[in-house]
Amino acid sequence: MENNKFENFSCPLPIPLNGQVAIGHGSGGTLTKNLITSVFYKYFHNPILDAGNDFAEISAKGSKIITSTDGHVIDPIFFPGGDIGKLAVAGTVNDISVSGAIPKYLTASFIIEEGFPIKDLDQIAQSMQQCALEADVKIISGDTKVVEKGKADKIFISTAGIGFLKNGLIINGSQAKPGDAVVVSGTIGDHGISVLAARNELGFSTTVISDVAPLNNMIQSVLALTHHIHVMRDPTRGGVATTLNEIAMQSKVNITLDEEKIPIKKQVHAACDILGFDPLYVANEGKVLFILPEREVSTLLKALHAHQYGKNAVVIGSISQSSNSPKVLMHTRIGGTRIVDMLSGAMLPRIC
Amino acid sequence: MENNKFENFSCPLPIPLNGQVAIGHGSGGTLTKNLITSVFYKYFHNPILDAGNDFAEISAKGSKIITSTDGHVIDPIFFPGGDIGKLAVAGTVNDISVSGAIPKYLTASFIIEEGFPIKDLDQIAQSMQQCALEADVKIISGDTKVVEKGKADKIFISTAGIGFLKNGLIINGSQAKPGDAVVVSGTIGDHGISVLAARNELGFSTTVISDVAPLNNMIQSVLALTHHIHVMRDPTRGGVATTLNEIAMQSKVNITLDEEKIPIKKQVHAACDILGFDPLYVANEGKVLFILPEREVSTLLKALHAHQYGKNAVVIGSISQSSNSPKVLMHTRIGGTRIVDMLSGAMLPRIC
Repeated sequence: MENNKFENFSCPLPIPLNGQVAIGHGSGGTLTKNLITSVFYKYFHNPILDAGNDFAEISAKGSKIITSTDGHVIDPIFFPGGDIGKLAVAGTVNDISVSGAIPKYLTASFIIEEGFPIKDLDQIAQSMQQCALEADVKIISGDTKVVEKGKADKIFISTAGIGFLKNGLIINGSQAKPGDAVVVSGTIGDHGISVLAARNELGFSTTVISDVAPLNNMIQSVLALTHHIHVMRDPTRGGVATTLNEIAMQSKVNITLDEEKIPIKKQVHAACDILGFDPLYVANEGKVLFILPEREVSTLLKALHAHQYGKNAVVIGSISQSSNSPKVLMHTRIGGTRIVDMLSGAMLPRIC
Repeated sequence: MENNKFENFSCPLPIPLNGQVAIGHGSGGTLTKNLITSVFYKYFHNPILDAGNDFAEISAKGSKIITSTDGHVIDPIFFPGGDIGKLAVAGTVNDISVSGAIPKYLTASFIIEEGFPIKDLDQIAQSMQQCALEADVKIISGDTKVVEKGKADKIFISTAGIGFLKNGLIINGSQAKPGDAVVVSGTIGDHGISVLAARNELGFSTTVISDVAPLNNMIQSVLALTHHIHVMRDPTRGGVATTLNEIAMQSKVNITLDEEKIPIKKQVHAACDILGFDPLYVANEGKVLFILPEREVSTLLKALHAHQYGKNAVVIGSISQSSNSPKVLMHTRIGGTRIVDMLSGAMLPRIC
């Protein structure tokens, strides 16, 4: 689900750490990469981590194991379309699924503030159960810690997942190739805007609900029709712009988007316009970006359109050779071309 | 490392939840079991979770995968003998190791308070690296979230681990058998007392340092000499008393301890006397309880005494049939026998 795994990520312009962790270090964008490179990557460096994906691949005599972890600190914990429990399960399920693997097992670590209502905990656990049922994964190990009132904000949930990858599938951020198309599985920005609305930070009401959903069934229905997918990634924190920048750098290619084709709900567009946000940077929790050869696009779209979470899937861009430093570009509605940078700093803290 | 996995644990006297999470729900004792049974277990119930161990076993075509997770919220984050980073790595390494499996991979989820010093984060990551090196495990996936100042206490780290179990080894909490001996790998209570001292809650100074250590190498050196171990478990939060109560219930046996034989450092004894603590309930982070046939004890002790973390290993009790409800009993120094209950409520919050 997250874009800020401990990646082998070289920031174009590393920003010196000024001695303190800033909110932007949790944004999933440039500052996060910088913190990870400067601190975690320095010490944890190993070939599996170095691969720079949202998941880790382990070889275990014949079958490949895929694992991933995410911490969930979303505020508020209940929002239109979901809650922190659904988010925690779907997020890790999705991170594993985009490798092509079938997620099977989750672990869950709960850090709870003293005084947290049991009925809220019950509701969260129940929505984890429902999401796990939908995704057909089992929660097989857990841990519960309680800290004093005021020492945590309600509840944080860290999940880790285990999935199994069929031999032969190589789908990851470094596989994008010139000539490939970029497909998004539906409208972008829904999650971020719904969470802002739930925080009453919009200043007006909206009917946007979060897209949070487990995407493994949709992804497996795609893989049943075509194995020619080069990259899948869920554009969560940092949004489509940040995710595509990661892929451009991992694959050393340029990615060009067509602004007119990017599916955005009217209400999301309106909210972004008023707030001065670019929807390309707003988090999604139920979308996948697919990068694949042009000739496979119709097969992919057929599979996606048949699925409840992929009805609005559409081609939004293409891959080309990068002459120098890999870039994400966008043909704008008004006819120009602009560079789409990675998110720098914190746009929406605690969005997941 | 933890004793409060989402176990299939029936509390002898379930305590009704009174609507709010209490500090005691994080103690690892009776209240924790009750919360887990009442909320998480109700929804997450499945055969792997039901096994009631600190680890989960997954069958994956031939080789068995062992997984475990822990959240770390220790206060203070730096203490004599270690820090939250060493604790996070060692804790998950140990939970996997006590299944008999060899831990290989860890994931790490960081939840950090805005303003947290980078130099502290660096030191924590470095001690995770050192502990991972000693344990020969790799950190292969991570996640970083930052919350606003005051919304978390410095840093919380949730780790999940993956290990591989050789076919044939069946070591878990339900394997204790009448006639077995109980061995502890060294002195008890060191971790809890060192952390209290670091919090300046003792009211006097002490030289006790935490025993936090990765125990996989010691455990593997034991398994190289004998495969006849029935149970291994690390007596962390809730201490030896809580861990043995868990095992007594899982195995449906009585466990009888000999107070005189329990190894306790003088300073730990003194601190416990002054504070009114029973060292049997004080957390350890570098100890293992072994339960095995009497005839295998000398082989076990030979292996343990040869290892830096097992020098003070000693037999502390035995297993007998349980006529009715499983119990932990103790022959006291003054000649009587008392029941050793599971920890109820919070003795030392945020000890791990």
